[in-house]
Amino acid sequence: MSKKIAGPEIERMVQLLSRLPGLGPRSARKAALALIKRREELLAPLANALNEALDKIVVCGECGNVDTLSPCSICASPKRDRSMIVVVEEVGDLWALERAGVVSALYHVLGGFLSPLDGIGPDRLNIARLIERARGGEVKEVLLALNATVEGQSTAHYLTEQLADTGVEVSRLAQGVPIGGELDYLDEGTLAAAIRSRKRL
Amino acid sequence: MSKKIAGPEIERMVQLLSRLPGLGPRSARKAALALIKRREELLAPLANALNEALDKIVVCGECGNVDTLSPCSICASPKRDRSMIVVVEEVGDLWALERAGVVSALYHVLGGFLSPLDGIGPDRLNIARLIERARGGEVKEVLLALNATVEGQSTAHYLTEQLADTGVEVSRLAQGVPIGGELDYLDEGTLAAAIRSRKRL
Repeated sequence: MSKKIAGPEIERMVQLLSRLPGLGPRSARKAALALIKRREELLAPLANALNEALDKIVVCGECGNVDTLSPCSICASPKRDRSMIVVVEEVGDLWALERAGVVSALYHVLGGFLSPLDGIGPDRLNIARLIERARGGEVKEVLLALNATVEGQSTAHYLTEQLADTGVEVSRLAQGVPIGGELDYLDEGTLAAAIRSRKRL
Repeated sequence: MSKKIAGPEIERMVQLLSRLPGLGPRSARKAALALIKRREELLAPLANALNEALDKIVVCGECGNVDTLSPCSICASPKRDRSMIVVVEEVGDLWALERAGVVSALYHVLGGFLSPLDGIGPDRLNIARLIERARGGEVKEVLLALNATVEGQSTAHYLTEQLADTGVEVSRLAQGVPIGGELDYLDEGTLAAAIRSRKRL
């Protein structure tokens, strides 16, 4: 809000909410109003949840996941296949894979992708620890589950080079037609990848 | 999130954020992640701002505005024209008018609009207090600054009836072509209103 129209407490709340991804100034005002109107069902529990998060949430020293423990519950789980590490850019990607329930291995969260133009070099990402883990002896395969974007793929390329002399196998996600995808709506790159990696029936 | 993929603290934060207007489950997860990643610049200040709001923000007993005082700073201001009350549906509308800087009178926030189908009758809105204020003697005009929707207009109709025997003048916002509006993009109702209320030059 360029013009101060409410007290400083409300202004501050709107201003901070507008910094959340997905909320602009207008929707931040709407969100602040919803919080004020629904004091007991929304404002109090959310204030409480944020305080809890602030107190308890830590970044896992092993894999970079966020949890209330370090090592996180995934790294500490005896049920996980410890011979494989799935490398993701962000915790959100880890969440997506866990929701799909398709990974029973360990993870490694890079915390972003390489972007020399934005000054994000290898030292800014959680890469050194990944190499250490790959050299640890227990790990046999590192699966690079990175976004199929230019940045994701150049990060994958860099990691493949770095992991070359660790002796672990490095793999990447398959590319092709998404399940339920209509050919008519797919870009040329995806179609080319799907044809290149076609499977015999 | 249907599937639990993070600790209960994160799940709870995502679930509460997804109840804010404008945030769905996916954007709530993104918002939660942004909060966790930007602990010091975002999570801590927002937790703090929500606690402050919880402690300090009250609904003004006069007009229904939200502020840290009751009467609110607008009701308490000696600079305001106390002979006029501008009636709005929600605090967001009051904020919009204050941002525009076009009102120097007092406000009255209804807290919604009449909607018999949703069980929202006059007793659920801040209407009784409006009638009381109108009868107070100081008020000469009540301007119904309600949305130009069916609900807003039927609420305006009801209020006009209720205010009929208070002796105050009741007015509504002008309807017509919005400033900068292109005729080509306007609906028939707006065009009809603009022609009906045309001004001599």
